[in-house]
Amino acid sequence: MRAETAVLIDRFESVRADSMAQVTALEPDDYNLQAADFVSPPKWHLAHTSWFFETFVLKVYVADYQSPDDAFEVLFNSYYNGVGEQYARPHRGLLSRPTTAQVIAYREQINEDLRQLLKDEDHLDYDAITARVTLGLHHERQHQELLYTDLKYSLSFNPLYPTYHKQLDVVATAPPALEWLAFEGGLVHCGHTGQGFCFDNESPRHKVWLEPFALASHLVTNAEFQAFIDDGGYRRPELWLSDGWACVQREQWQAPLYWRGHQEFSLYGLIERDGNAPVSHISGYEADAFARWADARLPSEFEWEHAITCCGAEPETIERPFLHPRAASNTGLQQVFSDCWQWTQSNYGAYPGFDAAEGAIGEYNGKFMANQWVLRGGSCFSHPDHLRRSYRNFFYPPDRWQCTGIRLAKNT
Amino acid sequence: MRAETAVLIDRFESVRADSMAQVTALEPDDYNLQAADFVSPPKWHLAHTSWFFETFVLKVYVADYQSPDDAFEVLFNSYYNGVGEQYARPHRGLLSRPTTAQVIAYREQINEDLRQLLKDEDHLDYDAITARVTLGLHHERQHQELLYTDLKYSLSFNPLYPTYHKQLDVVATAPPALEWLAFEGGLVHCGHTGQGFCFDNESPRHKVWLEPFALASHLVTNAEFQAFIDDGGYRRPELWLSDGWACVQREQWQAPLYWRGHQEFSLYGLIERDGNAPVSHISGYEADAFARWADARLPSEFEWEHAITCCGAEPETIERPFLHPRAASNTGLQQVFSDCWQWTQSNYGAYPGFDAAEGAIGEYNGKFMANQWVLRGGSCFSHPDHLRRSYRNFFYPPDRWQCTGIRLAKNT
Amino acid sequence: MRAETAVLIDRFESVRADSMAQVTALEPDDYNLQAADFVSPPKWHLAHTSWFFETFVLKVYVADYQSPDDAFEVLFNSYYNGVGEQYARPHRGLLSRPTTAQVIAYREQINEDLRQLLKDEDHLDYDAITARVTLGLHHERQHQELLYTDLKYSLSFNPLYPTYHKQLDVVATAPPALEWLAFEGGLVHCGHTGQGFCFDNESPRHKVWLEPFALASHLVTNAEFQAFIDDGGYRRPELWLSDGWACVQREQWQAPLYWRGHQEFSLYGLIERDGNAPVSHISGYEADAFARWADARLPSEFEWEHAITCCGAEPETIERPFLHPRAASNTGLQQVFSDCWQWTQSNYGAYPGFDAAEGAIGEYNGKFMANQWVLRGGSCFSHPDHLRRSYRNFFYPPDRWQCTGIRLAKNT
Amino acid sequence: MRAETAVLIDRFESVRADSMAQVTALEPDDYNLQAADFVSPPKWHLAHTSWFFETFVLKVYVADYQSPDDAFEVLFNSYYNGVGEQYARPHRGLLSRPTTAQVIAYREQINEDLRQLLKDEDHLDYDAITARVTLGLHHERQHQELLYTDLKYSLSFNPLYPTYHKQLDVVATAPPALEWLAFEGGLVHCGHTGQGFCFDNESPRHKVWLEPFALASHLVTNAEFQAFIDDGGYRRPELWLSDGWACVQREQWQAPLYWRGHQEFSLYGLIERDGNAPVSHISGYEADAFARWADARLPSEFEWEHAITCCGAEPETIERPFLHPRAASNTGLQQVFSDCWQWTQSNYGAYPGFDAAEGAIGEYNGKFMANQWVLRGGSCFSHPDHLRRSYRNFFYPPDRWQCTGIRLAKNT
Repeated sequence: MRAETAVLIDRFESVRADSMAQVTALEPDDYNLQAADFVSPPKWHLAHTSWFFETFVLKVYVADYQSPDDAFEVLFNSYYNGVGEQYARPHRGLLSRPTTAQVIAYREQINEDLRQLLKDEDHLDYDAITARVTLGLHHERQHQELLYTDLKYSLSFNPLYPTYHKQLDVVATAPPALEWLAFEGGLVHCGHTGQGFCFDNESPRHKVWLEPFALASHLVTNAEFQAFIDDGGYRRPELWLSDGWACVQREQWQAPLYWRGHQEFSLYGLIERDGNAPVSHISGYEADAFARWADARLPSEFEWEHAITCCGAEPETIERPFLHPRAASNTGLQQVFSDCWQWTQSNYGAYPGFDAAEGAIGEYNGKFMANQWVLRGGSCFSHPDHLRRSYRNFFYPPDRWQCTGIRLAKNT
Repeated sequence: MRAETAVLIDRFESVRADSMAQVTALEPDDYNLQAADFVSPPKWHLAHTSWFFETFVLKVYVADYQSPDDAFEVLFNSYYNGVGEQYARPHRGLLSRPTTAQVIAYREQINEDLRQLLKDEDHLDYDAITARVTLGLHHERQHQELLYTDLKYSLSFNPLYPTYHKQLDVVATAPPALEWLAFEGGLVHCGHTGQGFCFDNESPRHKVWLEPFALASHLVTNAEFQAFIDDGGYRRPELWLSDGWACVQREQWQAPLYWRGHQEFSLYGLIERDGNAPVSHISGYEADAFARWADARLPSEFEWEHAITCCGAEPETIERPFLHPRAASNTGLQQVFSDCWQWTQSNYGAYPGFDAAEGAIGEYNGKFMANQWVLRGGSCFSHPDHLRRSYRNFFYPPDRWQCTGIRLAKNT
Repeated sequence: MRAETAVLIDRFESVRADSMAQVTALEPDDYNLQAADFVSPPKWHLAHTSWFFETFVLKVYVADYQSPDDAFEVLFNSYYNGVGEQYARPHRGLLSRPTTAQVIAYREQINEDLRQLLKDEDHLDYDAITARVTLGLHHERQHQELLYTDLKYSLSFNPLYPTYHKQLDVVATAPPALEWLAFEGGLVHCGHTGQGFCFDNESPRHKVWLEPFALASHLVTNAEFQAFIDDGGYRRPELWLSDGWACVQREQWQAPLYWRGHQEFSLYGLIERDGNAPVSHISGYEADAFARWADARLPSEFEWEHAITCCGAEPETIERPFLHPRAASNTGLQQVFSDCWQWTQSNYGAYPGFDAAEGAIGEYNGKFMANQWVLRGGSCFSHPDHLRRSYRNFFYPPDRWQCTGIRLAKNT
Repeated sequence: MRAETAVLIDRFESVRADSMAQVTALEPDDYNLQAADFVSPPKWHLAHTSWFFETFVLKVYVADYQSPDDAFEVLFNSYYNGVGEQYARPHRGLLSRPTTAQVIAYREQINEDLRQLLKDEDHLDYDAITARVTLGLHHERQHQELLYTDLKYSLSFNPLYPTYHKQLDVVATAPPALEWLAFEGGLVHCGHTGQGFCFDNESPRHKVWLEPFALASHLVTNAEFQAFIDDGGYRRPELWLSDGWACVQREQWQAPLYWRGHQEFSLYGLIERDGNAPVSHISGYEADAFARWADARLPSEFEWEHAITCCGAEPETIERPFLHPRAASNTGLQQVFSDCWQWTQSNYGAYPGFDAAEGAIGEYNGKFMANQWVLRGGSCFSHPDHLRRSYRNFFYPPDRWQCTGIRLAKNT
């Protein structure tokens, strides 16, 4: 077996095992929880990530492949019109069958089939297979994060505030002072450099002109956001984008999503809110309004990428899981990949020369390039091995259920 | 122990055990299924029926009573404003905690407390206690039927068409010819006669003037309803009430709720539709439109009660469960209590002199006396021991998820 | 010319002229006002009442009839599926063409054609023609009332509170004490007696059994309703039907529709609210809740009709228009036909033996016999010549834009 | 009087008169037409454009200014939270008072007051006054275009298809062949050059890096769009952005907004559709899908501005009004400012260093910088004197009621 095959198989086993590890703390009643159209139940994530491998690898590259159940093609298709119909997203929580046990068995079967396929290094399409398996593993990393954030959202509807995991100790530190890190800008290059895996939306690497700017060393804290609220932040239309203000009125927002008095809901259950920890689970509109209030602005995604590159920041190899964002503990650029995704002012769009792949797999990213804002960095729910400086996360500006925060920028 | 105490305790054990017997066939994934705001998950039914005893018996009559969990007061309150707040009905399926195991333990605890209380025949409020326990048992019988119909509805969203119970054999019979049974009417008495239990809405017994009428001996069959469809029934506004026609357009109804081609969905899974069996799971609007098409009409609830009384029909003591309506097998008045609830043209309202009980328990029936139609009889999902000639079931005319059918009437 | 022909023609001229008299006070900007789906613009009422004569008389009985504009068949059809398609009701206010001038010309043309037809006493269908013209005139009287109530509703959205008519002087009187008028009930006859015109829904006359009851001599006043509000009437669920309570929550009702502080909106503009005048523009739910709070109930429509008949009350011949309800000024049964329609507890349904007419004209009343409540009497906006003891008005229980009030009843 | 004052006053008279000229063809019934929340009635436009001058000029710079009616401050405020409350936008069509005559009198009064103010060249704030009057005139030009497009939309709901203006003759020409005009890109400057008026959103002028690209010489024609439809354009999800596809499904789009068979609705009434004329009234999603189908893409707003600048195109001085887009009649860059606004792929956002003005007037543009796409050029409904190369129009990608079309771009 080639070395890189062994590495890939190792990684495959590890990623797939991680998904199962996430659900060991669940009760049987939790597997089908779906509190909104935009979240999916844990069981569905377990099934869909297997469906992805089945659909884009096994069905394509295994001769005479027989699916464990043909009905799954529709049931666990997320949004790939090129594959066919999809079971209605808002109803995913109604899929009490296949049962959790059956879905786990499905996972096992897909794993077994993939192991066989990956051993077949002489397969004529072996390069395509490993490319797609690699994509599938990054895809599964994304769903692992979604499993956390979706579960958190669904559990939050329960007045009993269930605990997914007991609270982890964090060493309380005196918060270092905020620094404004300055960058000169100019004609810079952005996008993936070409080494290692990236999603299609991170390329082509291209030139961008940047004016001089400064970036905040830390994320905005809960205490700072409380000051914004105390100053009438949610009641002053002049601080908001027009659509954001309409959203505040319609949703009657008065605080970040999970704030409950002096506490906040987390996967540790209801906990005391740490004023030094970064504010999290806020919408793009809230991030933008806070920035305006603070006489600053959100960075563009290119400013963010350029600054992070200049500073040499990399996804930390930290012991996971930390299931809640933590206060900054040092000077210099902090909390880049480890705590909250950082809203940018950039709309999610195609880089110059971008071209989506042919067929259903081309639906992965390209078709979502409208009405969403780019977030950069990573969160406490992200596995570090799928984060990159060029990684572009994207959500709608009203979305709050992801672990999102604010890094401010300024003109200089 | 008094004889009637023993009878009550026996009945208590039997009714409570029946609820648990209903869920033995469920998968763990099924317990929280809720496909619409108007249905409740099986687990919620198990909890709420226990809550009812706790709230209206234990908390009232047991000195220093301690609830197993104070949070349940809100979580499992259905609609009793007099008790306090209610967890939002559309979110019942999100209550993954308490877990199924915890809810079953809650049931056991309530059972045990009630056994103790019922043994205390010298309790100063013993008569009130037995009256409320009796009410609670009839309440639980209603929820047992709802558990079936709600579950059927929720499972129907699954394209796998899960089977709750294997199909029971029915001896196919040649359908007897329909007879029109004639009644003279006049000044008759309706309402409960005063022997045995009844709900408050069945009294006071009162006088009603009836013109002569005739009632169909059998329920309308699937084959007859197919003829209505084939004759353009769902496309001809002149057959429908105005609100019914708006409903047909809005919901795009083209057939009864569970029809799928030549099959229909049932708790047996997807089965062949028997043309001789009564059409079921139709709305009041569909019943009314069919009647107009058939040059007949729906009976009033008083015509129904008078006719059934004249014929001497009683709830059968049949071996349950039959989980699907069955074809008529005999002449004379058939299918009164055993197959489908029968829509009447009567709006659900108060009988002259009706007065709801004081306090929260008075909310049981009275506050629903608007916009609903009365149904009479019973269905294959009803336990015979809670049916009566004077029993008034009530649902909104667009509702289709109950096991409802059509018995026609005519002026003579 | 026969005497009855002359009478009919006189009546025709008078009714048709009354509609035009109603709009002389309008500004050109008012003719197309439509503030909700359930109201129609003044211009549309003018057109539709002409359409009714054209569709059901001229097109049927005039040989080689040519419509002034074929497009009007759809544009001004209200709800007659038997005639054909209807222009979408919520869009009636968008019909800036035909212009007001063109609609008035249309009215003139229809009038002229009808005058010719009515003179032709030898027409083979003359009896049918006069019957339909009579129906059309009663139909127009209904729309004259709607023109007032719809206009009031639409003008109420304007913060300038436009005045349709200057306020008429009312002689202030000391309010006479409320009396409870008692009736024995028994087997009584209800429905139209057969003399003069009635709508199909008022027949057949039939027997009804009534228990003894009492009826309030006056309508509930604004001051009494204020006491209900002051006692928490809109915040106490125990006073409300379940659907009514949901409506209060959803609509956030805190007072009758047109109350504004100590004033109320009227066709006189914003006026001081007279505590002795009857509360008006309330929903059936509010009427029912008030009655429960007052330890009384709403009468059934049969109690109402029986009592009014016993008392010999008739629609007054008063000088109109009074465009706002007035305080009671005398003892005995008051305010029967002249101030506010009176909600009953009766659902709007068919009398025993009711049969709608064949064809489109049969849609006039029958198809609305679901989900609505019967109101009896008449209002300050009703022309007395189309009111009768047996007249059945009907609206949905949440409806508030009609001039509706409360007459209480009690068991005795 | 200074020369520039005379020029400004001339321009003021001319712009204000143009608004009144637009409504001379209206019927009285048309003035309050509002077929959707997002359009405003003609009368409201007449009032609001006067309100703008009153609010931002007269109330600020005239000592002891008395408004003709204080209620107008709320009634005709569009969206300026800094000014105060706004009458609900969806209800603008309900403002039958003030009447049309009163609104016209209001315009006259504002005109007269402004004439007086503009003559006062010694006013201490004269420069600010002329700056704000200039802004108000550009604002009124925008509303003149909206008056056309809103009216067109509202009239389109009338099955009579009213004619606002008789069709103007267009000389039919053989369509010249499409050319792809190539541009090298590089580091270019975009934004207003600083000569003459511009809106705040057109500045600061700033550097942008462009890759080489080509731009289509003509707009996409009706015939080309028909080919897209014939090829299944509205039924093939792979051609659409995800949000666009959801929009197609939800709205059931099958053709551009005003297409009716082989005709299309216009301000000339229903006319034959010219295959050579540009497709118009399409959404951003349709423009994007067409481009994908055509193996091209939409230009960025910077590509558009750079290309138009390179070509030296300027808003034509053409005789208006042409109330419908016209076919291209020449080679080279065509139809830049005169026929349809051209969707770009650029999200509407702030230029680097953009800073909105202080106070309510700062709400003019800045708060809308989310979720909208930039359109460039101008349309047949735009007055040429308010168009510029740097002008940024913006609408939501589902919007179709503006006169919008497609100019394709390509990578080279």
